[in-house]
Amino acid sequence: MQDLKNTPIGIFDSGIGGLTVAKAVIDALPTEDIIYFGDTARVPYGIKSEETVRTYALQITNFLLKQGVKMILIACNTVSASAKEQIIKAAGDVPVLDVITAGTNNAVSLPNHKNIGVIGTLATVNSLAYVEAIHTFDPTINVEQKACPLLVPLAEEGWIDNEVAKQTLHFYLDDFDDSGIQSLILGCTHYPLFKEVIPKILKNSDIEIIDSAESIAESAKAKLAELDLLNTSGGNFQCFVSDRPQRFHEVAERFLGRRPNGVEVVVLD
Amino acid sequence: MQDLKNTPIGIFDSGIGGLTVAKAVIDALPTEDIIYFGDTARVPYGIKSEETVRTYALQITNFLLKQGVKMILIACNTVSASAKEQIIKAAGDVPVLDVITAGTNNAVSLPNHKNIGVIGTLATVNSLAYVEAIHTFDPTINVEQKACPLLVPLAEEGWIDNEVAKQTLHFYLDDFDDSGIQSLILGCTHYPLFKEVIPKILKNSDIEIIDSAESIAESAKAKLAELDLLNTSGGNFQCFVSDRPQRFHEVAERFLGRRPNGVEVVVLD
Repeated sequence: MQDLKNTPIGIFDSGIGGLTVAKAVIDALPTEDIIYFGDTARVPYGIKSEETVRTYALQITNFLLKQGVKMILIACNTVSASAKEQIIKAAGDVPVLDVITAGTNNAVSLPNHKNIGVIGTLATVNSLAYVEAIHTFDPTINVEQKACPLLVPLAEEGWIDNEVAKQTLHFYLDDFDDSGIQSLILGCTHYPLFKEVIPKILKNSDIEIIDSAESIAESAKAKLAELDLLNTSGGNFQCFVSDRPQRFHEVAERFLGRRPNGVEVVVLD
Repeated sequence: MQDLKNTPIGIFDSGIGGLTVAKAVIDALPTEDIIYFGDTARVPYGIKSEETVRTYALQITNFLLKQGVKMILIACNTVSASAKEQIIKAAGDVPVLDVITAGTNNAVSLPNHKNIGVIGTLATVNSLAYVEAIHTFDPTINVEQKACPLLVPLAEEGWIDNEVAKQTLHFYLDDFDDSGIQSLILGCTHYPLFKEVIPKILKNSDIEIIDSAESIAESAKAKLAELDLLNTSGGNFQCFVSDRPQRFHEVAERFLGRRPNGVEVVVLD
């Protein structure tokens, strides 16, 4: 029987954005094998019904379980908000972590932080998933949310710190910044690409940036250590998508810092 | 039997962008009844396979035919490129016009225009649909294409002429403008929203802007006149979407210049 330590970590997202999570996991755990699934045929999930998102998420979960993963990371905010419980149930003994819980735990663990900002897509902001997660921990925390719909297409275009990106961030964050937030959760898997530029835009330089991708990578590392499941001899990174591998391959570099070795297409059902 | 003149014109798109076509048709033919269908549950079409786009397009065509439309306008560039022939066949005696043919006919009819620019989404540009349509007319015409992926999210955000929109257009058009184009086809249904600002961005003020929405509206008017099917006593505008009517209702105003009276949800199969 294969040693469970040497089996891969499964990471999935509705598309390409979850590669920021893959990058953070590679940085934190360079000797782990990773399988990434991006549902590029059915992206975006944010405009779909909860029921549809759950169906898709469970299909991907089953695909990852068949690959023998030792852990599943939900890198998609929409799936984290809509389907986490169903995935945990389907995964059985395989631990499941999600970006919303990881980002929230990171934010609420900061000392004296009673005003937390969250930026995300319109779907994530409207779902109130971060607000609920933060209030489960402490209902007295003030949460300020701001939807930033243009950041996803900007990231996919590779416009991370040009004038358009900076102007866009000013439009979204200038007023928001005045609300007294002490930390800012990047509540969308695309947003870590703007991690360097956002502090230059914010008027208050003391605002702590919470990168959900880094947060979930740290949570994964801690959980694997706790379960004695850390791999010290791996390092493979395998990508699967449901459509358009070429486009994925091109854009992946921006998110991952390097091109994936190869991208395979899988049809789910 | 109902007089065919008094039956509606059917217009459809993968989402909301086709409302620019609806607006142009309302402006050109204010006494026609119009039925608009936006496939908001399955947008965007540009990332889907041709086969899937054809299946969806035929479902919508059948829906419009059941509503008794006298003409069908394909307001979606992806559908125009992938499924026009299938729709014409399915529509039988009902005439079908599409944005690519209408925009192309308008561009090639301009005198001495041997250098035509086309801007569109990545999917439209990669499909070469405009290039092929123009070359069918005259293979010696030089066609310069430029994908402008950020214009759709900018239009949906309502950022039409702010600094971000202007900077974005400069990024896309500054070099493109140097290529010697004499006319510029707005090859995406969202782009007519930038029709006022684009001439201010272009260095060459002689470039003629071809608005595919206006082009198809003019074609529709001419075709209805030719068939003696002009309605002089209508003016209703009915909207159907496959999901999220509220969001559609909100964004529609930017495209239409006014809020639609009501939006109904239809599930297609």
